[in-house]
Amino acid sequence: MKNILIIGGGGMVGQKLAAQLAAGALPDVGTVTLFDQAFPATSAPGEQVMGNLTDQRAIEALAARRFDLVYHLAAIVSGEAETDFDKGWAVNMSAVWTLLEALRAQHLQSDGAYVPRVVFTSSIAAFGAPFPAQIGDEFFCAPQTSYGAQKVIGELMVSDFARKGFIDGLSLRLPTICVRPGAANKAASSFFSGIIREPLNGQEAILPVGEDVRHWHASPRSAAGFLVHAAGLDTALLNGRRTLNLPGVSCTVGEQIEALRALAGADVVKLIRPQADPMIEKIVGGWPRDFDPKRAVALGFKADHSFEDIIRVYLEDDFPGRAPAP
Amino acid sequence: MKNILIIGGGGMVGQKLAAQLAAGALPDVGTVTLFDQAFPATSAPGEQVMGNLTDQRAIEALAARRFDLVYHLAAIVSGEAETDFDKGWAVNMSAVWTLLEALRAQHLQSDGAYVPRVVFTSSIAAFGAPFPAQIGDEFFCAPQTSYGAQKVIGELMVSDFARKGFIDGLSLRLPTICVRPGAANKAASSFFSGIIREPLNGQEAILPVGEDVRHWHASPRSAAGFLVHAAGLDTALLNGRRTLNLPGVSCTVGEQIEALRALAGADVVKLIRPQADPMIEKIVGGWPRDFDPKRAVALGFKADHSFEDIIRVYLEDDFPGRAPAP
Repeated sequence: MKNILIIGGGGMVGQKLAAQLAAGALPDVGTVTLFDQAFPATSAPGEQVMGNLTDQRAIEALAARRFDLVYHLAAIVSGEAETDFDKGWAVNMSAVWTLLEALRAQHLQSDGAYVPRVVFTSSIAAFGAPFPAQIGDEFFCAPQTSYGAQKVIGELMVSDFARKGFIDGLSLRLPTICVRPGAANKAASSFFSGIIREPLNGQEAILPVGEDVRHWHASPRSAAGFLVHAAGLDTALLNGRRTLNLPGVSCTVGEQIEALRALAGADVVKLIRPQADPMIEKIVGGWPRDFDPKRAVALGFKADHSFEDIIRVYLEDDFPGRAPAP
Repeated sequence: MKNILIIGGGGMVGQKLAAQLAAGALPDVGTVTLFDQAFPATSAPGEQVMGNLTDQRAIEALAARRFDLVYHLAAIVSGEAETDFDKGWAVNMSAVWTLLEALRAQHLQSDGAYVPRVVFTSSIAAFGAPFPAQIGDEFFCAPQTSYGAQKVIGELMVSDFARKGFIDGLSLRLPTICVRPGAANKAASSFFSGIIREPLNGQEAILPVGEDVRHWHASPRSAAGFLVHAAGLDTALLNGRRTLNLPGVSCTVGEQIEALRALAGADVVKLIRPQADPMIEKIVGGWPRDFDPKRAVALGFKADHSFEDIIRVYLEDDFPGRAPAP
C-alpha cells in the first residue's frame, strides 16, 4: 500500500490529481493526504491538512509521516513571484529546500530504508526567449522571471538529493494548463483559457494578442495524468537527467478559435472580442511556442492529441452547463 | 575610484586577481579588500579581512561597506562538496543567497542608487555527460555533482537579482585552471597540473588516465584576466543571459605531454609515469572535453592560445626554479 502526500492539494491540478487517484488511477493506494492553505468546498477525496509551506515545523511534521509518494505542486505563481520578490523566493526556493531536507532527515533516521518518490512540478517558465522553433530536451534554461529561476533551482535540488539517494525524485515541466475551469485570473496566460471557457458559457472574452501567437498547452486531465505516470516511472531510465519537458499541444490562437468553432459553432466564436493589449503581447512574446519532448514521450508521458481534444476535456470534466451542439 | 572586494581573496585565483589589480589591470581602482578564512604568507596587496562565508553578520558587515565591485570566488570545491553534503550546500548555495540578500538590502537602503557589479565564478561542472563534441552556449545544465548543482543555482540567483536591478551581475564558467602552482591536491583534476608541474620541478608525476583524454584548460593568468575583463563589461550586451562559458584550450593529455616535450625536452617528459586509476578515469570521463564559447569570445574574453602558452605562463609566473632549456 502506498501512502500519498499532495502538497498544493487544494489547487486546481492537485484536486484533479486527487480525483484521479480516488478513481483508481494508481494501484495499491493507501491514504491520500492533501496539504494546502485552503480547500474548495467540494474537495476531491483525501485527508485535508491545512498549513503554510513556509512553516518549517509543519513541513517536518508532514515528512515524519514518511509518505511513500510526495507530490510538490504548491507555488507562488509567476505574476505574484514577480511583484513579491521575498515571498516568491521563500515559497518557491526556501520551502523546497526545507521539504527536501526534512525528507532527507527521515531517510537518514531510517538508516537509508526510507527513500520516497518525489514528483516536483516545474514549468516551461524555466526557458527564456529567444528560442529555437521547437525547444529540444537539451536546450538551456535562461529564465526571465523569478518564478522561472526558482523552478529551475527546485529542479536542481531535487536532482541532487535524488543523485545522492536521499529521495527518488524527478521534475516535470508542465505546459500551460488549458482550459482552466472557474473564473479568470490575472495571469498573463489567463486569456488562453478565457477565450474558450467564457464563450462556451455564453460570455464575452477579450483576446489581447494576435491570432498568430503560438503556445504550448495541456488539459488539466493530462496534467494530472502526467503526475500519475510519474509515480510509477522507473527513474533509472532517466540516466541522471531527472527533469523532463512534457508533451503538449502546440497551436496558435487562430487554431484554438477554429477548434472552438468546430466543436461549438460560429455563434460561440463571435463572443471572442479582439482587443490588443501591448503589455500582454510583450509578455507572451517571451514564452515558449513549441517543444520536441522526445524523452518524455519515449518514457510514456501522454498529452492531448489536439486542441479540439483539450476543449472536449473541458466540456466533459468542467463545463458547468450542458455541452453546446454545434 | 572603484573599491573592490574579492571574496575568496586568499585562494589561488583570488591572489592572481589581486596581483593583477595591484599591477594596474583596471583603471581607477581605489581600495582592494580580500575576504577569506586564511591568506598566504606572501599575499598579494590588499586589505585582509578574515572570516567565514557562512557567518551572516560578517557578510552583512562586508556588504554595508558598499563595494563598487564584488568578486565571489569562494567555494567548497567539488570533491569536498561531494563528501560533505551539508557544508557544500551551506557555502555554495546558502552563503551566495546571504551575500546577494545583503547587497540587495544596501541597494534598497540607498533608494536604488547602489547597484554593485558582482562577478560570480562558476564552473564547467555545471554540465553533466553525455556531451556533444563541443558544448555550445545554449547546451543545458545537468550537473552530476553537488558542486555543479550549487554553482548553477548561484548563477540563477545572480541572474535574477541582476534582472531585478538589485545588482549588476554576471557568472563566469571557468575552465579547469592549469598549471596550478604549489603542491598537488586531492582533486580528481589534480593530475592535469601535476604532469606538467612536477616534471618541470624534477619530480615524478603519476598519469592516472590515458593520453587520449581531452579536457578544457585555462592558465591562472587567463582566469584572473577573465575576472578583470568582467569588471568592465557592458552587461546590456548579455541580453539577460548573464552566464558565460569562457574560452579555453581543448587538448588531450597526449598533446599536453607533447607541449611539455617541446618546451622542456624529452628528459623532463620521462618523469611522467602512466599508472591507470579506474576511479579517476571514470570521474574524468564525465567531464566536458571541448566548448564553442562564441558569446564570451565575441564579448572580448581572451584565453591562452595553446597548451604551450599555458606552460609558458607557469614558467613565467609560478615556476620556483630557473626555466629549463630544452
